[in-house]
Amino acid sequence: MIDTTELLTENIHLADWTRALKPSALQESLMIASKPGIISLALGLPALEFFPKKAYAQAVERVLESDPRALQYGPPSESLKAQIADLMALRGVACKKEQVFLTAGAQQGMNLLSRLMLDRGGEVLMEEMAYTGFQQVIEPFQPNLLTVSTDLGTGIDVDAVEALLAGGARPAFIYVVTEGHNPLAVSMSAEKRVRLVELAREYHVPIMEDDAYGFLCYDSHSVPPMRSIEDQWVFYVGSFSKTLAPGLRVGWIIVPEWLITKLSVIKEATDINTSTFTQKTVSAYIDQGSFNDHIAFLRSEYKARRDAMLSALEDYYPAGVRWRVPSSGVFIWVELPDGTDTATLLRLAVEQEHVAFIPGNAFCADGSSKGGNCIRLNFSHSNGELIRKGILRLARVLKDVLA
Amino acid sequence: MIDTTELLTENIHLADWTRALKPSALQESLMIASKPGIISLALGLPALEFFPKKAYAQAVERVLESDPRALQYGPPSESLKAQIADLMALRGVACKKEQVFLTAGAQQGMNLLSRLMLDRGGEVLMEEMAYTGFQQVIEPFQPNLLTVSTDLGTGIDVDAVEALLAGGARPAFIYVVTEGHNPLAVSMSAEKRVRLVELAREYHVPIMEDDAYGFLCYDSHSVPPMRSIEDQWVFYVGSFSKTLAPGLRVGWIIVPEWLITKLSVIKEATDINTSTFTQKTVSAYIDQGSFNDHIAFLRSEYKARRDAMLSALEDYYPAGVRWRVPSSGVFIWVELPDGTDTATLLRLAVEQEHVAFIPGNAFCADGSSKGGNCIRLNFSHSNGELIRKGILRLARVLKDVLA
Repeated sequence: MIDTTELLTENIHLADWTRALKPSALQESLMIASKPGIISLALGLPALEFFPKKAYAQAVERVLESDPRALQYGPPSESLKAQIADLMALRGVACKKEQVFLTAGAQQGMNLLSRLMLDRGGEVLMEEMAYTGFQQVIEPFQPNLLTVSTDLGTGIDVDAVEALLAGGARPAFIYVVTEGHNPLAVSMSAEKRVRLVELAREYHVPIMEDDAYGFLCYDSHSVPPMRSIEDQWVFYVGSFSKTLAPGLRVGWIIVPEWLITKLSVIKEATDINTSTFTQKTVSAYIDQGSFNDHIAFLRSEYKARRDAMLSALEDYYPAGVRWRVPSSGVFIWVELPDGTDTATLLRLAVEQEHVAFIPGNAFCADGSSKGGNCIRLNFSHSNGELIRKGILRLARVLKDVLA
Repeated sequence: MIDTTELLTENIHLADWTRALKPSALQESLMIASKPGIISLALGLPALEFFPKKAYAQAVERVLESDPRALQYGPPSESLKAQIADLMALRGVACKKEQVFLTAGAQQGMNLLSRLMLDRGGEVLMEEMAYTGFQQVIEPFQPNLLTVSTDLGTGIDVDAVEALLAGGARPAFIYVVTEGHNPLAVSMSAEKRVRLVELAREYHVPIMEDDAYGFLCYDSHSVPPMRSIEDQWVFYVGSFSKTLAPGLRVGWIIVPEWLITKLSVIKEATDINTSTFTQKTVSAYIDQGSFNDHIAFLRSEYKARRDAMLSALEDYYPAGVRWRVPSSGVFIWVELPDGTDTATLLRLAVEQEHVAFIPGNAFCADGSSKGGNCIRLNFSHSNGELIRKGILRLARVLKDVLA
């Protein structure tokens, strides 16, 4: 019998870059994690029990009752842009609402910025270990990646960035996660933020500052994002996914005002506009005045979950396993003894102990074996009890694998 | 004084294709149309008084009360895909829910399909006069456009398509609007649908069938879309924007099942997923069972508005102005006497008579002066009284311009 699919695959010409497309590792993890009985420490999902459903339902009701244009095509919401500018002020960033561009989440923010700045085959400067969603964004451009390492205590290797730029490299932009690095869980030191901004100015290379986790910081003395010290060379990417709800798909970018018109055309070609209804309801929710309290609540709850995971790691993990206390974000990066086979560890963890994580090498951008002995653990999705149980189960499998 | 913006424009390198980016004509029209007191016959906006706000509010309430995962990241809604497959059956299309791919509206559907199939500098076969949003989608690819003309009574010139393909052209795809063509208001004849599908099969060139207006047909004997006669070479693009509400941003594409995985990865890189909350609420709305009645209601109401516009044209327009009765969609394409300056007409119409339309040449894909003596009028957005008033005002300006 003839396999029709294969025949068709040969017949329909697809864009060159799509030939190498593999099913998404994230989607596969989502499948595994959604199996009944699995404790998932894999994905960076917020806790669904913390969504402010009641307050959001009130906002929806108010918008549908009072705004006849709630379901119509419409321009970006001026009130939401102003509310975002106010939110940014809480993080020490001064920006005007005219510099705020609304997106369908941080992922789309990175996508639009890449399409604005990156030519096919162009250069991108980034860390060796990086958010896979960003790698997916730039893949169609078949870019030339310039990678630098990351210090687990202070963040991106700024000396290596400087060496590349001083050596003549002129990437389209530098991609970096300032707070709660995904997957490495590090926050960039204040000193490195200043130095990286100075390099951007000196070499005229913009920084794409991915701050999706920026509002989830657990130290009282958090450092402001790079956008707070530079408004022309830092393009800031923000999101409501980790503070309000990811199922709404709303985020924003902050760029120099002269780029807004170009971004508007790229956005229009993508999906016309971010849902008018969602823009208006998120704005109405913020207008109710409880969002700042909600963020403070999340910080407190997620900090407790982080501490539950840290204490379980202390209690159950063997010597030779290392991790640090993350001051922001939703992940802990765990280094296992050299040579640990994390693929086997994951298979056994899921099959025998019904617990999931992401092997570190999945985040490696340069195709090497970096992160091969590491795993990324999420502490936002599960409650403290499940986290403790998950870590215990994982410790049992680890013992078998290391034996 | 130094113009900082210009200095920065020189300093920050943007992607090559963005240099030619102009502010969107659609956004400019939206600005004009939203001025107080303007009767807008310009954009293809649905009538906001017809949105099923009450039923949708009930659906939202139900989802927020009963579904704990309503605001979480999540996979595409299986129930919504099944409901779309049922909807398509009403139009004579047999498809499985596994062939339905959810998008943030038809615009995103076209965007994802183009990224799947089109290489930079690749060929696209399309009509000379085409939806500007589609032109924006392919612009970043700097494509080689193969254009054919359109018969105002029967649609795309299929002979010209055949001549191009027989002559060796192998475009990435053929873009065509089956029903209620934007801007030409024509519906493709049944015979041409069959012939175009045969050409797609023979030459192995997929058809991107943009059917955004397909559910708004005003004849009792409407012809099914091309997807009803071919499931491998026709990629169908559908939308809830014209039947439910554009402010939600939900649409779909129907493709051969083996392409779903690749599309999922492209979609994930774009915006992770279409809003879970919106997917679930649209599905809950359809589940209430009144959507088919609502579509029938819209057909009846929009048909009445179409007839109001036709009768006003009859009453007020001078000899030498021509139009046809559209059997679907939301536009009437009006041909004015040769040499009519529609740019001046628009300026005077807005300034003196407070009425807006879109000059025909705005839709011209090949940079020529085609459509220069034509205008596109929308009849869905305004009620019959306003339509009659708008056509009268436009007739007065037209008289001045032709004088």
